[in-house]
Amino acid sequence: MRLPAHGSNPDHLFSALGMTKPAEIVDFSVNINPLGAPGAIKDHWPSLLAEIDDYPDPSASELKQMIGDHEGVAASQLLPGNGASELITLIARYLHGKKVLIIHPAFSEYASACRNEDCTIFYHVVHPPHWQLEKQALQKDIENVDAVFVCHPNNPTGVQYDKPAVDWLIDACEQSKTLLIIDEAFYDFASDPVTFIQKAVRSRFLLVLRSLTKMYSIAGLRLGFLAGQQELLARIQKTQPHWSLNAIALKAGVLCLNDQQHSRQTRQYMDTERARLFSFLKENEFLHSPSAINFYLIKDPSLDDQEALFQFLLQRGLVLRHTYNFPGLEGTWFRVAIKKKAENDLLMEALAEWKQGN
Amino acid sequence: MRLPAHGSNPDHLFSALGMTKPAEIVDFSVNINPLGAPGAIKDHWPSLLAEIDDYPDPSASELKQMIGDHEGVAASQLLPGNGASELITLIARYLHGKKVLIIHPAFSEYASACRNEDCTIFYHVVHPPHWQLEKQALQKDIENVDAVFVCHPNNPTGVQYDKPAVDWLIDACEQSKTLLIIDEAFYDFASDPVTFIQKAVRSRFLLVLRSLTKMYSIAGLRLGFLAGQQELLARIQKTQPHWSLNAIALKAGVLCLNDQQHSRQTRQYMDTERARLFSFLKENEFLHSPSAINFYLIKDPSLDDQEALFQFLLQRGLVLRHTYNFPGLEGTWFRVAIKKKAENDLLMEALAEWKQGN
Repeated sequence: MRLPAHGSNPDHLFSALGMTKPAEIVDFSVNINPLGAPGAIKDHWPSLLAEIDDYPDPSASELKQMIGDHEGVAASQLLPGNGASELITLIARYLHGKKVLIIHPAFSEYASACRNEDCTIFYHVVHPPHWQLEKQALQKDIENVDAVFVCHPNNPTGVQYDKPAVDWLIDACEQSKTLLIIDEAFYDFASDPVTFIQKAVRSRFLLVLRSLTKMYSIAGLRLGFLAGQQELLARIQKTQPHWSLNAIALKAGVLCLNDQQHSRQTRQYMDTERARLFSFLKENEFLHSPSAINFYLIKDPSLDDQEALFQFLLQRGLVLRHTYNFPGLEGTWFRVAIKKKAENDLLMEALAEWKQGN
Repeated sequence: MRLPAHGSNPDHLFSALGMTKPAEIVDFSVNINPLGAPGAIKDHWPSLLAEIDDYPDPSASELKQMIGDHEGVAASQLLPGNGASELITLIARYLHGKKVLIIHPAFSEYASACRNEDCTIFYHVVHPPHWQLEKQALQKDIENVDAVFVCHPNNPTGVQYDKPAVDWLIDACEQSKTLLIIDEAFYDFASDPVTFIQKAVRSRFLLVLRSLTKMYSIAGLRLGFLAGQQELLARIQKTQPHWSLNAIALKAGVLCLNDQQHSRQTRQYMDTERARLFSFLKENEFLHSPSAINFYLIKDPSLDDQEALFQFLLQRGLVLRHTYNFPGLEGTWFRVAIKKKAENDLLMEALAEWKQGN
């Protein structure tokens, strides 16, 4: 199949497959909070209009202070970015020409940004059914490279690695002077969120990357940040364009972080829906990854090739995320976001129908 | 004086000078349309809220089509960016390590972005009172470099270069295979706007840079574009982060370009106010640059050092743009934006008061 690399554009997907897009579609390929943005964004939207005509604060002081208070770190240990994507690009720029290890399967942007900067890319693949880190194999791979990208919790499996294994990875990277970048874009969707931000601000060899666009459903505004040591952040910031963060994102970020009830409610919702979905999948003999967050991998173990299932769901307007460009998955699984209850119901109905017909 | 490099943050300015910021200030350092954003942005603002929760279209198709129609070029000859700043950073990235000539005085971002990419920077300075291009001197400078940045109309002088001189520069760069970047950020503020976009899409050695944030007063949203040959743009785009343009900017750009009355009205307003200001300045024995657009340089020719005038105005809450970091000016002039009528009146009153006391 010739498919768009990213999952966020169903129009491209249907046209690439030569299929007519159904009138109603549900896009399970987008990992955004189905509860939407915090109410405060809606409430303050009229007043945000006043932000458009002046330049954004290039130092993002208010937002940095807010994040710092929230995370228990100094504002100087933070580098906000125009979405996590920009920060990945800046890190790749900083790593220009270096050897980079990516723990896979993982978000495809690490590899594409590093490739654009002439890095040599190595893959370390973790395996089903647990998709956990394997120390012994990793130890050898780390020693050969300048930097390691790890996505935790993992995108696309949704797996939270065992905490001692990540602690070990941090120590091993520190020991071999390898820069470790932990992407925590989805950490706050887990019932029990685990972050390594306190270690990042204490180490020259650790960066934590965060996104505010997933939990707070503001992907259109672009907002993320890096946490780490000030000197390292300054080197990474060197090639960040001036006024890179727009003024609406700066204000929206503050409003989001002020509403912690929203993320608590989201976690409770995810727990309930994940349990309901996983129980259905088990009963209907689908395999799924042991996700702890807001998306998971599925497959029908009775199929050699999952493409028929993908197209069956597309015809019903249910768009999953293919995994052809995830090393270690190569299309053998689909990534599915946990969406609104009624949307998850639609998916379960379609999957039940598929099982009856196969 | 130890002053912030950019003029867009009066708080930093007053604190750097150890001065108390007056309760009311008028910021003449920001070159944004004083008529504000087009009415359509205000009218459509409530509906733009719907854009925040999904990823922006990474191909910016609608906006590119709109700009293309507007400029008479193909969408493929355009590269939108997260503000002109991002595009300058991407060009600098593309020029990494090369020799770059900047026609000065000019917007400081060209030099800082190119310096961050280890370029060797050369200056060609144009001189008062006309600040026009001098072919003979330029010819020699061009031959020595890989790229030339020129801001046209010029920031900070406001001067439109004679069109034949720019045509000559384009040809000279083409001949010596030097990439010429013409920054037309303010071109549409002139009574008679001059653009070289049609030449850019036909040449491998010419790029035209545009900003939508000045004319349409959306500096907070960040929006600009490059016009040129598709292959060259693709090389420059290589290191642009994914989803770099936020969804609000994408929609706002379309709304702005749909409202051409706004830019016509702005040009008429500027013509009237510029004439009024220049007649006052002449009468009161201030010098000014022969600006054709929405800002100009001024100085009091009776002073050796302009700093006393700067501080006199600051104490009255009138913030001009210092020129200490503009090679060729070095603080001997101030840049002043044409603002609302009442604000321009305030400036003229203060300048008259200054002349009476000196």
